[in-house]
Amino acid sequence: MAKGMIRRLLLPQEDKFYPMFEDLAELISKASHILAQVVESAEPCKKEDSIREIKLLENKADDIVHRVMDALDSSFITPFDREDIHRLASRMDDVMDNINATAQQILLYRPGRLAPQTLELTMVAVRGCEQIRIAVMELRNLQNRSKINDACIKINELENIADDIFHKMISDLFSYEKDAIELIKNKKIMETLEYTTDRIEDVSDILKTILIKGA
Amino acid sequence: MAKGMIRRLLLPQEDKFYPMFEDLAELISKASHILAQVVESAEPCKKEDSIREIKLLENKADDIVHRVMDALDSSFITPFDREDIHRLASRMDDVMDNINATAQQILLYRPGRLAPQTLELTMVAVRGCEQIRIAVMELRNLQNRSKINDACIKINELENIADDIFHKMISDLFSYEKDAIELIKNKKIMETLEYTTDRIEDVSDILKTILIKGA
Amino acid sequence: MAKGMIRRLLLPQEDKFYPMFEDLAELISKASHILAQVVESAEPCKKEDSIREIKLLENKADDIVHRVMDALDSSFITPFDREDIHRLASRMDDVMDNINATAQQILLYRPGRLAPQTLELTMVAVRGCEQIRIAVMELRNLQNRSKINDACIKINELENIADDIFHKMISDLFSYEKDAIELIKNKKIMETLEYTTDRIEDVSDILKTILIKGA
Repeated sequence: MAKGMIRRLLLPQEDKFYPMFEDLAELISKASHILAQVVESAEPCKKEDSIREIKLLENKADDIVHRVMDALDSSFITPFDREDIHRLASRMDDVMDNINATAQQILLYRPGRLAPQTLELTMVAVRGCEQIRIAVMELRNLQNRSKINDACIKINELENIADDIFHKMISDLFSYEKDAIELIKNKKIMETLEYTTDRIEDVSDILKTILIKGA
Repeated sequence: MAKGMIRRLLLPQEDKFYPMFEDLAELISKASHILAQVVESAEPCKKEDSIREIKLLENKADDIVHRVMDALDSSFITPFDREDIHRLASRMDDVMDNINATAQQILLYRPGRLAPQTLELTMVAVRGCEQIRIAVMELRNLQNRSKINDACIKINELENIADDIFHKMISDLFSYEKDAIELIKNKKIMETLEYTTDRIEDVSDILKTILIKGA
Repeated sequence: MAKGMIRRLLLPQEDKFYPMFEDLAELISKASHILAQVVESAEPCKKEDSIREIKLLENKADDIVHRVMDALDSSFITPFDREDIHRLASRMDDVMDNINATAQQILLYRPGRLAPQTLELTMVAVRGCEQIRIAVMELRNLQNRSKINDACIKINELENIADDIFHKMISDLFSYEKDAIELIKNKKIMETLEYTTDRIEDVSDILKTILIKGA
């Protein structure tokens, strides 16, 4: 029996992973958009409802990640390498955790002002999460490989842009900010945002691995 | 020959792991109590003898962890999964390292004052270490599963309490502390303490895994 | 057929790993020397050319690490455990990343002055990288085990020296530095340097493992 036929017969079994990854990608993308609204606002630390909503999305993402891991334990057949499923779920979870951490730090630290490039860096994260969503939606159908590949290339470009913005931000912050406590607050929020974009690149790396193995 | 009989015949071989884990749990619990005495004192950074004692306990714990790893390399039969033994020892070591790091930071940074909730958070760590000790003492006898399970539930509850205290601490610190250097000192000490409670939860997660696999 | 003979027959295949590790060790050692020149200068943040050169060396090291990983994927026979090759390359990469991070932080933060012991700690890193180079050059010829062993012992001694310098630096910094922003800059640079020496010790640990397994 051809491998393709076995695959098709068993599809319902392996099929359950796709909707979970798709839901996870939607949650991440949604959270990144809400974060951008928070950062954009005149008084970010007063956007308590939005920050609470991000926390709720993060809880939902946690639940999905647990369900992915449970499904992995109970499945004989998986649509791609078990290890890659584990890693994709974990790294997507990391992206969500860091979007949430950025929001929580804004609430906790109550910075008097956010550095001007904070929104710029947040928008890079938003665009990265959007590319994750696009790529994850194509996982069901690895035939359409170029879409996933294009998304990964865009994420790499975004990561380079993020690095440049981050370095400029930190360098600027240390030259203009004379209030040490405001500097501490802004530096930490910037670092968490930049760490978020690094985690988005980790997701892209796993997607590339899945693409190569599925070739 | 039944699996149970093989186990019993080989017990002396696998038995050596339990006393090492028990010693490790005792050392961690002891170190956490000494840390609480340091934090409680009027001038924590003057408790140099206590801080040195914590360092000695950490060295002893390192020795035990090395002995666990050596025993793992030379044992055919282990009382539970090799990987879980490795992880339990490593994560218990992490708890100890972070208790010690908190103490060393108090000595190095010499904070003028510790934030009022520092003792509260330390006591959560003390109670978590006590639950680790209780659970580890029951490992020899997995029949008494409910005691380990109860300890893990308590550690989870403690971790939630720790999170709440930590968030309140950081938020308070940024609103009352106008001396940036004192803020840096206290923020770092709080973060290390909070990181310690996270590591305690990691130990609990492994204990739960061991419990499930041994079911 | 004796194991030794099989080894000799297959040598060309496994042989390709040695030059890559040797190149990596040379790059790390070179980068550490340039970092020392930066730190030593009267105005470190003006040594932009040197800092850029360190970045270029880091890029070259990245390329080699990727080539090691590719070679690992396509090789049946490896000169030592696949996992240890992977770890040795990754940990050497970490050393390079942290030398580069230290240099970049000097450029970004533009500290008004570097703490006096910064050069001292940098020189410990330089000597550690030199010992890595010595040990890696001997990997081809595991017969000469004592040279690798001696290098690992020296790295351990250096790590203890680094710890002492670092603790003294941090303690001094908090007692003399009254400018919070200068304190933040220097503290972060010191921490990255100290983290670099920790990563050097990680390399030494893997070299010891390779030595033991090859016994």
